[in-house]
Amino acid sequence: MRIAATIKEARAFIAELRTERAGAESGNVVGFVPTMGYLHEGHASLLRRARQECGIVVLSIFVNPIQFGPNEDLDRYPRSEEADLALAEREGVDVVFLPSVEEMYPQERRTTVTVTGLTDVLCGASRPGHFDGVATVVSKLFHIIKPDRAFFGAKDAQQVAVLQQMVVDLNMDVEIVPCPIVREADGLALSSRNVYLSAEQRSEALVLSRSLREATARIESSTDVTPRQIVESVRQAIEVSPLAEIDYVQMLSFPALAPLKHEEDLSELRKSGASVILALAVKFGSTRLIDNAIISLK
Amino acid sequence: MRIAATIKEARAFIAELRTERAGAESGNVVGFVPTMGYLHEGHASLLRRARQECGIVVLSIFVNPIQFGPNEDLDRYPRSEEADLALAEREGVDVVFLPSVEEMYPQERRTTVTVTGLTDVLCGASRPGHFDGVATVVSKLFHIIKPDRAFFGAKDAQQVAVLQQMVVDLNMDVEIVPCPIVREADGLALSSRNVYLSAEQRSEALVLSRSLREATARIESSTDVTPRQIVESVRQAIEVSPLAEIDYVQMLSFPALAPLKHEEDLSELRKSGASVILALAVKFGSTRLIDNAIISLK
Repeated sequence: MRIAATIKEARAFIAELRTERAGAESGNVVGFVPTMGYLHEGHASLLRRARQECGIVVLSIFVNPIQFGPNEDLDRYPRSEEADLALAEREGVDVVFLPSVEEMYPQERRTTVTVTGLTDVLCGASRPGHFDGVATVVSKLFHIIKPDRAFFGAKDAQQVAVLQQMVVDLNMDVEIVPCPIVREADGLALSSRNVYLSAEQRSEALVLSRSLREATARIESSTDVTPRQIVESVRQAIEVSPLAEIDYVQMLSFPALAPLKHEEDLSELRKSGASVILALAVKFGSTRLIDNAIISLK
Repeated sequence: MRIAATIKEARAFIAELRTERAGAESGNVVGFVPTMGYLHEGHASLLRRARQECGIVVLSIFVNPIQFGPNEDLDRYPRSEEADLALAEREGVDVVFLPSVEEMYPQERRTTVTVTGLTDVLCGASRPGHFDGVATVVSKLFHIIKPDRAFFGAKDAQQVAVLQQMVVDLNMDVEIVPCPIVREADGLALSSRNVYLSAEQRSEALVLSRSLREATARIESSTDVTPRQIVESVRQAIEVSPLAEIDYVQMLSFPALAPLKHEEDLSELRKSGASVILALAVKFGSTRLIDNAIISLK
């Protein structure tokens, strides 16, 4: 495993590997897993998927300042370089790209990649500028790594939708591969931010996955339930927890993230076999957790 | 010469050529000249430069709707596909990418590449949204063609500065190569839009290059002339023409396009060996012409 601290090194390492492995099956295919580090089993699942499909696996670890708002947790975002590199080694990563902020933003940045529409809802509404920061840094990383496939966790479902839109709109020659949410045995979606939770907060946070599971079952079994009823039932379940402060609970079409008619049942959507996303963001103390369920209607 | 109407064809043709020519010197280097067609000797000079330096030369011809404002000349922008292809053939182009608007914008576009700062002045101030359209389409074309070098005419000096900023900010692995303005024997800068000019307008339009030439000579010979005096003298020269309607005459640092102190002489800038741009946009009837001089101070 090679560790690149600079863009130049990353490009050189990947170019070398492309040449070395050109003969092998998928030898020339570059799989890329961009992360902010503090890696957990969710990231490991992305790396395993990349390892299965691609001859060359590249991991980036970069806590991207421009996707954090002024009152967000950039300064205290958890880091653990040593453990991250051990996990990467274990998962057979070929190149870890581990740049400094100065390497990624050496001069005053004047260029921004903006995806509109998809970013007005969910986390985009709560975190203005967040998805500009995500789209811009992922563009940069794609131009540095030049991956054939890039693997993203479905926990950040809106991020996946935004990046898929960006890739199509800008004709980027890379396939965005969404991968399933990985959960603890008790249902909590894995997140680097879980480390912030007290034991009590962590226990109450189980309401998120539980309420999503219940709502999914209800959508799948009941033919006349409305989006408004679903959202209301999730809200009520979460509000039982005294530590939970709801940022949003929303049900939208997926991947377009367009509003559903709240008063109508889902029968029209069922006819077209569309998908919906039920997504939420909830704060426990100063820790903001997100979770979602993507439900294919039938 | 191969003509690609689709993105898929363009990618396939270029990939084939890369394989075929991998052994030859610069055989694998892709030189790219993006244009809006109605090609003239200015474009030909870019193609010749690309042909000299690169094993594979790609020309794109695409009148990009999103860089035109609502009251601009999109609908009447001159086109001449047959003559363009003949010129391309003559200049030894390998692949012409000639997509339809539907091929480039098949669905509602939600992604925009924006470069701020550099775009608040000159044409950016007169044509709001223009450089968003340019940066976005050039991003798309770069992702389709994947050039090593892209050649642009210095007549669109602000475009060159904006694209250089974009490429650096987004870590695009392509070199922007600015090439000198090509002029008619009498000094008129070549432009596809010159075809709109009446004989009388064309004759009066010579004031643009003449006034830039005189101002350049004055800057080079006089040590105490101020930016304000230079701009004023260019304005006065142009205002002599009854057909000329000035959009702007500006003198800025280059390539930063930052304002100069109008009242000061240029001696401070001369010490640092900086460059300035003296740029103008002037309408003759409904035809808007631009021209500029980039002057290295000593």
